Order: sequence, then structure tokens, then C-alpha cells
Amino acid sequence: MIKVARNADTHTELRNRYKTVRAQSLLLTASLSDADATVQSMEDASPAKWHLAHTSWFFETFLLIPHTPSYRLFAADFSFLFNSYYEEVGARFSRPDRGMLTRPSLDDVRNYRAYVDSNMVALLETDVAPDVLALVELGLNHEQQHQELILTDILHLFAQNPMRPTFRMSEPLSVSPDNISPIKWVSFEGGNIEIGHGDTDFAFDCETPKHETFLHPFRLASRAVTNGEWLDFMADGGYEKPSLWLSDGIATVRAQNWQAPLYWEQQDGEWWSMSLRGFQPIDRSAPVAHISFYEADAYATWAGKRLPREAEWEHAATQSAIAGNFADTGRLRPKPQVSGTTDKSLTGLFGDVWEWTASPFVSYPGFKPAAGAVGEYNGKFMSGQMVLKGGSCVTPAGHMRASYRNFFQPEKRWQFSGLRLAEDA
Amino acid sequence: MIKVARNADTHTELRNRYKTVRAQSLLLTASLSDADATVQSMEDASPAKWHLAHTSWFFETFLLIPHTPSYRLFAADFSFLFNSYYEEVGARFSRPDRGMLTRPSLDDVRNYRAYVDSNMVALLETDVAPDVLALVELGLNHEQQHQELILTDILHLFAQNPMRPTFRMSEPLSVSPDNISPIKWVSFEGGNIEIGHGDTDFAFDCETPKHETFLHPFRLASRAVTNGEWLDFMADGGYEKPSLWLSDGIATVRAQNWQAPLYWEQQDGEWWSMSLRGFQPIDRSAPVAHISFYEADAYATWAGKRLPREAEWEHAATQSAIAGNFADTGRLRPKPQVSGTTDKSLTGLFGDVWEWTASPFVSYPGFKPAAGAVGEYNGKFMSGQMVLKGGSCVTPAGHMRASYRNFFQPEKRWQFSGLRLAEDA
Amino acid sequence: MIKVARNADTHTELRNRYKTVRAQSLLLTASLSDADATVQSMEDASPAKWHLAHTSWFFETFLLIPHTPSYRLFAADFSFLFNSYYEEVGARFSRPDRGMLTRPSLDDVRNYRAYVDSNMVALLETDVAPDVLALVELGLNHEQQHQELILTDILHLFAQNPMRPTFRMSEPLSVSPDNISPIKWVSFEGGNIEIGHGDTDFAFDCETPKHETFLHPFRLASRAVTNGEWLDFMADGGYEKPSLWLSDGIATVRAQNWQAPLYWEQQDGEWWSMSLRGFQPIDRSAPVAHISFYEADAYATWAGKRLPREAEWEHAATQSAIAGNFADTGRLRPKPQVSGTTDKSLTGLFGDVWEWTASPFVSYPGFKPAAGAVGEYNGKFMSGQMVLKGGSCVTPAGHMRASYRNFFQPEKRWQFSGLRLAEDA
Amino acid sequence: MIKVARNADTHTELRNRYKTVRAQSLLLTASLSDADATVQSMEDASPAKWHLAHTSWFFETFLLIPHTPSYRLFAADFSFLFNSYYEEVGARFSRPDRGMLTRPSLDDVRNYRAYVDSNMVALLETDVAPDVLALVELGLNHEQQHQELILTDILHLFAQNPMRPTFRMSEPLSVSPDNISPIKWVSFEGGNIEIGHGDTDFAFDCETPKHETFLHPFRLASRAVTNGEWLDFMADGGYEKPSLWLSDGIATVRAQNWQAPLYWEQQDGEWWSMSLRGFQPIDRSAPVAHISFYEADAYATWAGKRLPREAEWEHAATQSAIAGNFADTGRLRPKPQVSGTTDKSLTGLFGDVWEWTASPFVSYPGFKPAAGAVGEYNGKFMSGQMVLKGGSCVTPAGHMRASYRNFFQPEKRWQFSGLRLAEDA
Repeated sequence: MIKVARNADTHTELRNRYKTVRAQSLLLTASLSDADATVQSMEDASPAKWHLAHTSWFFETFLLIPHTPSYRLFAADFSFLFNSYYEEVGARFSRPDRGMLTRPSLDDVRNYRAYVDSNMVALLETDVAPDVLALVELGLNHEQQHQELILTDILHLFAQNPMRPTFRMSEPLSVSPDNISPIKWVSFEGGNIEIGHGDTDFAFDCETPKHETFLHPFRLASRAVTNGEWLDFMADGGYEKPSLWLSDGIATVRAQNWQAPLYWEQQDGEWWSMSLRGFQPIDRSAPVAHISFYEADAYATWAGKRLPREAEWEHAATQSAIAGNFADTGRLRPKPQVSGTTDKSLTGLFGDVWEWTASPFVSYPGFKPAAGAVGEYNGKFMSGQMVLKGGSCVTPAGHMRASYRNFFQPEKRWQFSGLRLAEDA
Repeated sequence: MIKVARNADTHTELRNRYKTVRAQSLLLTASLSDADATVQSMEDASPAKWHLAHTSWFFETFLLIPHTPSYRLFAADFSFLFNSYYEEVGARFSRPDRGMLTRPSLDDVRNYRAYVDSNMVALLETDVAPDVLALVELGLNHEQQHQELILTDILHLFAQNPMRPTFRMSEPLSVSPDNISPIKWVSFEGGNIEIGHGDTDFAFDCETPKHETFLHPFRLASRAVTNGEWLDFMADGGYEKPSLWLSDGIATVRAQNWQAPLYWEQQDGEWWSMSLRGFQPIDRSAPVAHISFYEADAYATWAGKRLPREAEWEHAATQSAIAGNFADTGRLRPKPQVSGTTDKSLTGLFGDVWEWTASPFVSYPGFKPAAGAVGEYNGKFMSGQMVLKGGSCVTPAGHMRASYRNFFQPEKRWQFSGLRLAEDA
Repeated sequence: MIKVARNADTHTELRNRYKTVRAQSLLLTASLSDADATVQSMEDASPAKWHLAHTSWFFETFLLIPHTPSYRLFAADFSFLFNSYYEEVGARFSRPDRGMLTRPSLDDVRNYRAYVDSNMVALLETDVAPDVLALVELGLNHEQQHQELILTDILHLFAQNPMRPTFRMSEPLSVSPDNISPIKWVSFEGGNIEIGHGDTDFAFDCETPKHETFLHPFRLASRAVTNGEWLDFMADGGYEKPSLWLSDGIATVRAQNWQAPLYWEQQDGEWWSMSLRGFQPIDRSAPVAHISFYEADAYATWAGKRLPREAEWEHAATQSAIAGNFADTGRLRPKPQVSGTTDKSLTGLFGDVWEWTASPFVSYPGFKPAAGAVGEYNGKFMSGQMVLKGGSCVTPAGHMRASYRNFFQPEKRWQFSGLRLAEDA
Repeated sequence: MIKVARNADTHTELRNRYKTVRAQSLLLTASLSDADATVQSMEDASPAKWHLAHTSWFFETFLLIPHTPSYRLFAADFSFLFNSYYEEVGARFSRPDRGMLTRPSLDDVRNYRAYVDSNMVALLETDVAPDVLALVELGLNHEQQHQELILTDILHLFAQNPMRPTFRMSEPLSVSPDNISPIKWVSFEGGNIEIGHGDTDFAFDCETPKHETFLHPFRLASRAVTNGEWLDFMADGGYEKPSLWLSDGIATVRAQNWQAPLYWEQQDGEWWSMSLRGFQPIDRSAPVAHISFYEADAYATWAGKRLPREAEWEHAATQSAIAGNFADTGRLRPKPQVSGTTDKSLTGLFGDVWEWTASPFVSYPGFKPAAGAVGEYNGKFMSGQMVLKGGSCVTPAGHMRASYRNFFQPEKRWQFSGLRLAEDA
């Protein structure tokens, strides 16, 4: 069910996009040492080197081997080492051991990328069939997902180091809301509406099919919850009151001894946080990030509100776009054009923090996984995970859209994940 | 949001129901020794003695202490020992240590029950307010839930014993479908429909409010999957093929070395199973039971079908009742009156096995937990669990209805849980 | 290498001893309920019912089956259920699951004992060969070991229960030293001496052979360390100073959050302890008990002393006996006859607490395990355990002697284990 | 109790030895990449970078800070990062997280070494007191211990990599015995003998004091057990027979699924092993290595023999040297000069594999740990570990002597550890 790249993406455009996206991965990792790129800081994270190699393995395995008859593997071992989870493609290297691979070196992996890229560019200069182009498009979106993971995983690694290394000073800050005066409540009428991806441009299989659903009237907060508001929650004993928490949530709080978002640390009475720009004081006006679903849910309960459901969020984002609040809710990063006079003014939907929803990640009515190994992409994770919507400050531009369904287990915190409140109308 | 007992339940009726339900718990456990009633066979299970005491603690804590001014505690320690999870009511004894309580004895617990019962009957002879009656109703439904758990937990305990004790020979068999010829597919048109509990009689808070939702057309299998069909799945390598499984599912299969439903054991080439009637050969025509959600989902994938969504199941059960297939889908155990001529013929919805659905247990639009400690009842478990519908052969009669929402984690197998297939129309 | 019962033990004497020892096990457990006797409170402990059955299984397996041709098993399942660890005797039931056996009941097990006993008494009325008598003697000593474990295990079980049940008020107190004025130091010259068991009466294989060894001059404390002294150690931050501890010791202290001996609990500033007589205030003059080897070693370091080596302890106990300090250091419980004028005055060696030594449990020069399954008795545990000498207040009279080698892992605390200080002379 | 460097070690000699030993660490790690030197492959192992930094930290902390008044720390963080276990020196970085330190880089660590070295050489050019020289000597022996660990740890890391990297082709092979004809048994009379270190040259505190002990007559095998003999043990079902194993041993075999020594792998019916020279076929005539104490003990039981006790081994090694079998059993690597005519011909005692003994690592009579933080060196590990004697093919020359006491937990296998058989005479 992977959509064919839309008409406008001619071969030339796709070839150029291939070069741009692939170059971006190298750019992101330019400041990393061989050691930085090798170590795995926890089972959820992967080494940068692994991300760089695995995304290349994708193109080698699904494009070059089947479609370039003369293609010779760069290294036979890599098929085993850099397969992530595709059971159908063959044996794979144990996930928690990804950090054991001091060889191949980062330079070896860069050579692997260059080799795959030259072959891919050659392939894209031939007359390739639409389903092949669709796989290239999938590979590029897959690469963009890993670009985000490279940054979240390197932050996690650096946060383990008492020397608190700085990844780079130029790393974009999470955007603060233009206006952090009290939240405004934006109303939506609900009724029978449509969500999901129905256009001809790219989407992951789990975003389809576009389908009808029914919404009760609801309201969304005009902006995300800020660090300052989170400090109020903490000051009110938020992490200690079991009545605010889901049962699994309070158990996790206690087992992990959570007292603040991930990476937060108190120094001389002030809260600081590890970031890609190094160790920094907490910015009260920025959206809170690095919280789990459990924490988001507890905060909403504390505030007397609730988390939005996925369909509510997506519907609201689409309506906001139609109402002219965004230049584009789709592939480009939106430029919020907040107008005080419309009641659909929602800010920061895309590009600050992923927003936890109340919705478990399950299949849409009529969903069919893509055939073959790429069908393992999303469907098999439809258990035990919650949907996040929008996109974060480390999500690649062009990789955000209203129908996008990000998903993680409810206790995960190493992504740039925050929340926006909702309530029944 | 606990519903007041309906008008027809006068005080007298409720007092009689109180006596009946409470007596049933004693009847169920009459054959257990002090030791049988004391041991906890795994963290999910509780000792029978604990179930008997905890359900009494409920009436003592929520009814007698607040509403019988002269009431004196039976034993001060019991408040601590037999609180289950109500954080607001105070400290509680560690769940995994429930099996350490060799004292109080089973006889002590029976005395506790008698003491609570005589006080409760006295209370119910006074002029009690409707909200108090509602709490009594809640306590009786709570007791019925524990009656089912007593049986599932004792089966689990006896299954650990190589001597394979028999609980009792008269234990009702899971009902075999009248007709195990190939499944028929019953069609439903979908559209905007209503689910949830809206009547005046009792329901748990999570079943409310009754609300509108939208369904795409779908079909349900006329009966549950049988043991014979499950053997076909096993023979086809069902437990070994990762492509059939959710990612968490295959990981669980491998970690737990699952090769068949819980309690199944192969002897000389034949499959047997531990049951409340002892060790018995597998009955190919009975509904498969003691499977996890992961197994149910994998079976459906193997069969080229899917699990029903909760709203589909509930809508279908309600429509079947309206079409005359059941005498009562509500509080009484239905007597299936299958007619070959209607297309809504669904058999075995209630009273054979709980049926796993594709739906995570989340709140309904407009849901508000009950105020106070009883509000911890369901809402705090709305994370990481899947809904099961219907009712099993060990569910008390009068405790099954179409809107009932049972829920367990996707890897649990010790309940009488099976599945029914669905497909898109 | 099991010693034949000495000449004085005629058949009649052994038969009478059989009856006495076996009756003692029933006497010890007379106050237990079926539930008390069934639950296993931790993997190290076993249910009383299991102890009662396993000791009978020993006689059935090693005596009745091979030597009473007409013997019929009491119950075929019991061979599997009550084998402890004898790999050569066949499959055995998983140790951590011993608490799952609610059936057979305690009454069933008592019947099993009676059946075995009547057959054993009949066997002992025949003309049995010396090696058979030696196995009976081994079985009785084995039973006495389990008598001590019955008491330590029931104490552990009752200590898990917030109601703090009393086992029995008549349980003997650990004897307080006659004189708890400051410790006196008793000197020993060392040189080439002999330790180990060389007499004709019973000893376990690991106590043999009697053999020569060399000791440097040393001094032993005249009495064990008391609870009062232990409180001084605690008050001085003993549990918090890593420099006092072995590396594995401090790691265990931190992982288990040890702050006092096992069963100690602070209430309103005073220390209390769970005991077989129920919850009691700490007696400052009694020997400290329920400490691990790690704690004993840390205390000795704190006191500027060390633990005695096994050979030092055994040599000193033997010398004390020769010097007339004890009526009998051997099979009878000694009556200390402390004389102020001899420099070998050691009190409380037998019958208060087991005393941790500095010696790992390893084989004596020339040690050969007994042939056959009974050879699994001691030799296979000669790794990772430390020797304790003497005997405790719950060790059966007649089961203590200077050559006895008790052994447990260095972190175990549920035995009545304490310490006596030593130093280089 | 650290011995002062002997008279012959003038300042000049010690300064030269400092340079030589320190240079050797750099030489050993010259072929490692930054990533190779950073990753920690298991909790027991440390990254090469950590070894290189920690050994420098030792000189900085114990020599430069107290004795070079003008010394300025290279980097303040390093005191925390590279402290290993010295509780008295202050907080330290969590051991299992050593592999998280991608910064400082390998080059940074080399700069740290150069900085420490230039300061140390300057210090050694001044008139330093004997106790300071003794600490330098300790630091150099400490560095030599880490040189061995660098190699064992890098082997473990590379063995996790399916690409099976080669550390270096020139790595010395474990020496095969000159004569692998059947083992000869060398007899020793025992009696009162002396073991331990009593000379004026360097030894670790745990080797002292030299002291008298008593030995029963015994025999030692003339050579270590070979890979060929180990294959016989495996072929005879050695890993499957519980009667051969200590109780903890067979439990470990089963839990870890051991079927051969560590690093062994079967390919097409032949056994291969990962080594510092890469993946190699097993050499039947080489001493078996990478076995645990449990395996060594089980092999000895299978062979009808036993492991030597530490005192037996040390006495035999000393006697062999006196008899002229070795040029030097002490600080230089021995050149075995086996003479067929003497009954003390023992080969391969030093430089092939560490030989497991039957002796737990405990203190010698009269042992006193060194004062201060360096006193944490050995004494606190005297629990739960077994002594190994001799030295392996990766032990630095000049770091082997008869009194040396190496020690590891009985389940460890990543050292070059093998065995030599013994028996009672």
C-alpha cells in the first residue's frame, strides 16, 4: 500500500531528492568521532554508524539487488549486520549487540554509503518502473526517520557522559510559542469526518486508507504545555500522587524513580537539562519535551483535561490548514500564521515536539500491509504503542504531515515528545 | 458514574441478591483445603482466601464503615491485608506476597465473611439512600468478577501440581457449538450506530456513556474458533512463522517457548489439557481457550482474517438479540436460538469463552471515572490492555451483557479466552 | 565414607533412636496448619510439609526399596515430588515450586510418614547388614538437619506476615552468656594439630578424614558477639562504611538495603525482632543472630579483629573439652562449666548460634565422597559457601560436635548465625 | 605491606622501568581504533581506553598529587571517570557504563598518558623516599595487570563481532608442551613447608607474609590438560553429566548452555576458536584455555583426579626451580629446561595458561592490607573467588612468579585459564 510518488516527481526530481536526503545524513553526523558513532547507549537506541549503514542496506537490499543485475554487494557480512527487523529477509544481528560493532569503522560505513549512492544514482538514470520509484520514495522516508533517530540517540549517548559533550551549538531550539499567555481553547464540532492519507504523494502504509469516522465535539488547546507549566505540576507533587496516574504509569514512576522529564537535573535549586547544545538551564516558555505517555496523561488529569484522540488531532490540524493558519500542513514545515480572529488558531502543531495522543496505534479500517518484506514496516508494531502526532524540532523538514502516525511505547522518553491538552466540548 | 440499581430492585430484592451472590462464593470454594485457598501460583493470580476476604473488605470499607455508625472492624489488620489496589484507601499489602498469608486461616476468613454479611443484611434492612444501594450493587458485581477469578486462579494453581488435582467433576464444560460445520459469515452494514451502556440497570463506569460511533461494513464468523481448527494452525507451523505475528507477539512466543495454548500438553502424540475437571484429552469441537491476544491475532492473520473491533462485536451482539437470536443478551445467560434463516445467527457469544477483540481498552468519549476510591476501579487500567467481549463458562450467570468490557494484557492466557474471526465486508 | 554406627548402637538402640528422631519432627510441626506447612516463603526455604515428606522419601528410597523386597510405594508421584537434589535418583520437582503443592495435604504427608515408619521399624527388627545401619544413621542425621530447617523456614514464613504469628511461646531462647562483661581472649599455641572426624560414631562424609594441619598461634574470644555490641556497630555507621566490607559484601548491603540483621525492625526508636516467640524487643545480652558472613566479616574488621578459621575453631573446641570446660563437646549439648582459672574458657560454642568462620567450605585432604546417590550429599556443594561451626538454639540435641561442618553462601541470613572474634597471637 | 623495591633498583633503574612498562601499554594498543578502544563488551571487561586512562590515574592520584606540589590535574573530570573501585578516593563512575565514554577520545587519553609520564619522569629524577618508590613499583605492577586485561578484553570484544576481526597476526601462541605423550606424575612429599612472598623485591600484599603450612604428600601432572584431551571429555558427554559437576557448576552449564570452552564454535563438524589471531582451528596439542573453575573441576572429576591446592602448586613450582628446571621462577619468564632424569619435571607452569587451583582466595595467616586507599587492592576481593597460579601467554614477562595469586570468580572464562591435574600420593 506504499503510494507511488506523485506525478510531479519525475525521475530527475526523485534523483535529486535522493542526493539531498542522503547527503543530509552525512551532514548530521559530520561532527561525530568513530567512537561516538559506534556506541549503543541503551537497547532502544542504535549507534549512528548503524543508522548510516542500515539505511544504505535498505537501498541495497530492496533496490539494487533486485533491479541492478550487475550489482555486487559491497560486503557480504553487511546484509546480516545491518538488517534491522525484517524477519523475511533473513537472519539478523541481535539488536542489543549493535554497539559491539567497532568494525566496520565509520569511514568504512561512509564508503559503503558512497558505493550504494553511486549505484543508486545510476539506477535512477535508467527507465525505472513506478513500483521501483515507490520503493525509492519509501527508502528516502525511511532515511528521514533514521535522521531523527540519529539525533535522539546521540543525545541519549552524550547524556550518559558526565563530561556532557555538546553535539553542536547550532542545533535548532525547540520553538517557543509566540504567545505564552494562558492557553486558548479552540472548538471543533465533530460529526462524520475523514482522516488518513488519500493523496497521491507519499505516505506510510499505516496512514491509509483515508476513511470515515465519527467525532464528538471537542476543544484543543491553542499551544503545547510548556516547561514552566510542567514545573507547576512538579511543584504540586505531580510525580507523587497516584490518583493522577494510570496504574502502569505510577508503577513505572516508582520503579524508575522519575521525578522530572528525562535529562532534567537539579543543580543548586535550579533545573537544567542535557540537550544537543549541551547542558542548559530549563527555558520556561519552551514546550516540555522528553516526557512519556504516562507523564503526559498524568499531567492532563492533573489539569482536569485529557489528551486528544488521534482523529481529533488530525482533524483539527487539517481544519486549521484549510482555515489558513498554516501555509502547508503537509510536506513542508508550517509557518504558523496565527490570527487572533479565527477560532481554529492552533500553534506549534509541527516542528516543536511530537504530541502524545490518547490513541493506541492500531490499524485503520481496511488497512492492508504492503506485500513482501517492506510489509513488516509498520503493521507488526500495532500492539502496546501509543500514537504521537505532528513532528519535533529534529524531524526533517518535508517529513511532517497531518496524517503521519508516529508511535512509541507509553514509557519511552528519549524522543522529543510533549503534549497538548484537549477537552470535551 | 455507577448506575443506581433500577427501580425494580427494591431493598428486598437487593438484600436477597446480596445473600445469593455472597453464598455463591462460598459454594464455589467449598471443596478447597486451607492450603489450596492460601497459595498464590503466580503474581497475576490471587489465593482463593484472598478473593473471599477482599470482596468482604469491599463491603466493610465502602458500606459498613461509612454507613453503619456502630460498626466495629472485624480485625484491624485486614484493612491492610485485603486492600487490592485502591491507593486512596491507604497502604496495602504487596501483591506478589499475597500467598505468604497462611494466617488468617480459611476458617478465619469465612468468619470474617459471616460477620460482614450479618452487618450488611442489617444495613440493607434500613432505609438506605440510592447512592448506597448503587455501591452495594457495585460490590456484588465486584464479587462476581472475583468468583470468576477464583476459578481461573485455582485452575492455574492445580496446573502447577504434577499430581494434577481435580477441582470438581461437575464443573460445566465449555459449550460446544451446535454446528461445527464450516463457519458462516454474518454481515453487518455499519454506519453511525451506538454502543455503550445507557440503561438504568447496573454497569461498570467504563461501559458508559452510551455514545455514537461509525462502523464500516463488516462480517463476523458465526461461531468461535475451535480446538480442532487450532490444531490445524499448530500443524501448519503457526507458532514458528514470524510473519504471522505482531512483533511483541513473536518475542513472547520465543521467550516463553509457547507451542500450544496454556495448559496443553502432549502425551504419546495426543494433546491433553489441564482443566477444572482434571487432566483431559482435547475436545476438537470445543472453542479454543487459554490463548493470549497475540495468539488470537496470529491465528486470524494465518486464516486471512482479522479480529473484530470492540464496537463491531457489541453492535453485532445487540443486533442479534434484536433479531431474536437470543432470549436475552443482557443480564441472563443467553439461550442461543439459532435460526438458519436469519443472517444474524451468531452462536456462543456468551458463556463459552471470552473473545479477544482488536481494540485496546481506552475510555469512551465523555467517560468520567466515579468519584472517590471506587473511581480507581477501571479507569486507571486504560493502558496496555486489550478488550475481551462476551463471557466464559466460568462467568457467573447474570454477569454477562453486550456492553461488558473485560480487559487483560495481550500476553495473558490464564483466563478462558478464545477468539471469533471477522473480516471487512 | 559414611561411618558405620558404633558398636554400642545395637539394632535395638538404633530402632529406638529412629522412633525418637522421627517423632521429634512431628512434635516440632504439631502447631502448624495445613497452610502453614504448605507455603514456600523464598527459594532457599522449603515448606514444612516438604521437609516432613522429603525425610521420609529418603528412608523409602535408600532403605525400603532396596532392602524390603515386599515394600510397595506409598504413592508413585512422591518419588518425583520429594526428591531434593539427587540427580542420580531421577527427575525431581523444581525447587522454587515446592510451595505449589497444596496436595498432598499435611495429613496425607503424616500418613506417608506413618507408613514409612511402620515399614522401617519392621526392617530394623530384621538382621540388617552394617552398611544398611549406616544408611539409617545417615537418614536420622539428615532428618535432624531438616528439623533445624523446619524452624528456620517457618520463622522466615511467619516474618512475611504483617500479623506476625507466634510459632510457640515455649521456643527455647538463645542462651545468653553467663557473663557479658568484656570479652576475654583465650590463647592457643597452634603448631601441627589434627582436625576432622576420626571416631567410629556417625559423621558426615565432609568431616573426614581426620588429618594433620598446621596452625599459627591465635586467640579466640571467650564468647560470641552480642546484640548490644551489634547495636554499637550500627550506631557507628557500620552498614555505611565501605572500608569495613568485602567488595561483594558492600554490594549486597546496598542492593538489599541492609541496615540491621534480618528480622530486625525499628519501632519508635527501639529495635525489635521477629522470632519464633513472635515479635520481641532486642535482648542486648543475647548473641546476635541472623547475620550473613559479610556482616560478620565487616563487624570483625570494625572491631580490629578477624573471624576464626575453621581449623582454629575446631581445635579450640576440642582443647576446651579436653581441658574440662565442657561435659561433652560431642553428641550431647554441652553444659558449659566455665572455670575462671583455666585459659581455655570458651562459652557458648554449641547451642546458641552457628558461628561464621573465615573458611570456605572445601574438601579435606584425602576426602572421598560416599559412593552412589548419597555421595551427592555434601561434596557437590564445595563451592561458594562458608563454614559455620558449633550449633544453634534450634539445632537438635545430639546433632552438635566439634568436627561438624555447616555451610551456607556468604549472603544468607535466615539461619541462627552469629560470630565469635579471633586474632593472631 | 607493599614491599619496597629492592636495593638493586636504583632510581635510574626504576625510571627506566617506568618508561618501558608505560611504553608497552601503548605498543599493545597501537592497532586499535578509537571505537575499538571505547566499547565495553560486558560488565567484567573494560574498554582499552579506560585501561590506558585508569593506569595513568593511578600515578596521578597516588604519586603526582601528593608528591609533586606544582602538579596540576590534566582534567578534573578524569578523577571521577577513571577511578576503578577505590571507595576511599571518592565517587567513581558506574562500572557497567564505562563503555559510554566516547569522549575523551583515544587521542585525548594518549595525551593524558604523555602528560602524566612527563611529570612522573620528572618526579623520579628527584630524591624520592623509599615508600614513594614502592608506590611507583606498585603502579607498574598494576599497569602490567591491566596490560593482560587489555588483551583479554579486546579478545572478548572482537569475539562479539560476526566479522571476527584479527587483533594482530603476530600475537604469541600459547606454547604447546614439548612432549604431549601421556602425562607423567611428579611426586612431592609434603610436610611442613613455606609459601608466600618473603623476598625484598616486589609482591602484592596478598602474597604475604611468607608463612609455614603443612602439606600431605601429593603428585602433580607434568603438563597442563590439552585441547585434545578436552575434546575427549566433551565426546564422553562431560558437559551433560551432573555427577561430574559441582552443584553451582551444573547450574551454570545449564543456564549458560555451555557445551565447550568460551570462544569455541563448531563449523562443519570441526571445532574452531576465536583468538587474538582471528578465527582459528583448535590445536589439539595446545593447553586448553578459556575454561571456568567449574569446568576445570568437572574435568578433574571425570579424569579421576583433582585440582591442585594453591600451596601444593606453589611448593611444587618452587621445588622445580630449586631442582634446576627453570632458570628463574621469579620475575623473568622461565625458560623450561626439562630434564628427563629428575622427578620434579613440570613444564608450562608459567606463560601458557593460568591454572585454576582448588583453593578459594583467602588471606594468609598474618596478612595485613596496605594502609590507605591502595589497601583496597586485594583484600576486599577475598570472597567468592578462586586462586589461579602461574601466568598466561598474555601475561607480561617479568610479571610471573611462584607466589603470585591471581583470582577470579568460578564461572569466569574470558581469561586465558586452563588446568593441571593433581592427585593424593
